[in-house]
Amino acid sequence: MRRIKLVVAYDGTNYCGWQLQPGKPTIESALNKALSELLKEEIVVIGASRTDSGVHALGNVAVFDTERTIPAEKICYAVNQYLPEDIRVQASQEVALDFHPRRVVSHKTYEYHILNKRIALPNERLYSTHIYYELDAELMQQGAQYLIGEHDFKSFCSVKTQARETIRTIYDIQVVREGERITISVTGSGFLYNMVRIIAGTLIEVGRGAYPPERVKTILEGCDRSLAGPTAPAEGLMLMGIAYEVN
Amino acid sequence: MRRIKLVVAYDGTNYCGWQLQPGKPTIESALNKALSELLKEEIVVIGASRTDSGVHALGNVAVFDTERTIPAEKICYAVNQYLPEDIRVQASQEVALDFHPRRVVSHKTYEYHILNKRIALPNERLYSTHIYYELDAELMQQGAQYLIGEHDFKSFCSVKTQARETIRTIYDIQVVREGERITISVTGSGFLYNMVRIIAGTLIEVGRGAYPPERVKTILEGCDRSLAGPTAPAEGLMLMGIAYEVN
Repeated sequence: MRRIKLVVAYDGTNYCGWQLQPGKPTIESALNKALSELLKEEIVVIGASRTDSGVHALGNVAVFDTERTIPAEKICYAVNQYLPEDIRVQASQEVALDFHPRRVVSHKTYEYHILNKRIALPNERLYSTHIYYELDAELMQQGAQYLIGEHDFKSFCSVKTQARETIRTIYDIQVVREGERITISVTGSGFLYNMVRIIAGTLIEVGRGAYPPERVKTILEGCDRSLAGPTAPAEGLMLMGIAYEVN
Repeated sequence: MRRIKLVVAYDGTNYCGWQLQPGKPTIESALNKALSELLKEEIVVIGASRTDSGVHALGNVAVFDTERTIPAEKICYAVNQYLPEDIRVQASQEVALDFHPRRVVSHKTYEYHILNKRIALPNERLYSTHIYYELDAELMQQGAQYLIGEHDFKSFCSVKTQARETIRTIYDIQVVREGERITISVTGSGFLYNMVRIIAGTLIEVGRGAYPPERVKTILEGCDRSLAGPTAPAEGLMLMGIAYEVN
């Protein structure tokens, strides 16, 4: 028995998120099916981030166990032949049998992409959120800095969460404008349900002048979801990668 | 009667190109339908570049005539309400009644986008061509330089062309690598049928070492389509913009 770790990129547009749901297309079910066909045994992957419906990834992580002897590094090339073209395994390697992608300490990086111009661009519509009113990225960056560190992020967590405790650590968050594109890049120890999208929705409120940047501190301290901005749309969110302290 | 010029961006993925074709979705038919609904008169646009099936645009140009008095600059916002989200008019303005987008002298700029890495990225698959073997962008740039100037581009033109003469001018062509992305950017007075895609297909042959860069000169001088490389896929091609000497 070996445990194989996969780095998985996908276009979430046509999927109901990562997690298995009966009768619905999900990334997890597509991976299970492709790996089972390739390896001719029943494969069940364990994912690191159970991304939401419509959210994209460049580097989500999953593991699975197999009895087969195919070289671990070749599995990525082989399984891609069985996957639809909107899912592509980028890398594969053998890891310790006790490596669990949600239990090992990791740094996750997400990016939230905003196209900030009067009229949308068709070729970016699937991978960014179009905001037609002008955003001030410097104000957004100021507001974002209050989120760095270990905090109770209850205000930035969907009320539908099943998390028992809502303390998380954000190591870094940067808001950068390049021309008409604004990227919010955030790295943390882990994220609550809808956390990055609620952070994005709140920073968009700051960027358009509805909230002063200091309001982010008040929202954080209030520990109440209703204080924060709306949940920004799924299509702007991309899981960039997950770095583990051990493999 | 006024003539209105539109700058049109579209995701060509789900269209059979620009030009009207009975029973098929085309950019031209979508624009005619949306403008006719908005203006409540029958509108027929004249396009600058009749892009092929699957080709994208940031800045194609079209004109149409109208009896209506809606301010020209507001038409872009209004018509977008009637268009599918994969077509977005970026700008609208009144032009002289004799302005014809294919007869007035213009500079057209196309980009051909290549993702050059072993494994494809799902989120780029619709807007670039994936080449898994390594390309040398410097060799491609060397080969491209032979194309600059006024030449008979018969070798870089589909045999299905209806063009009577095949002399065109390329003002500039640049091949630039940024990480895993290679962009071929070409500006010219006009382009023959499939010309940019055949240039891209030929430069890809140069980039993988199948042709030495000087071969591009031989191909050009041979005036024979069979000498050049294959026609590169449509999804990598984007019409960036058209600059007119007069409006």
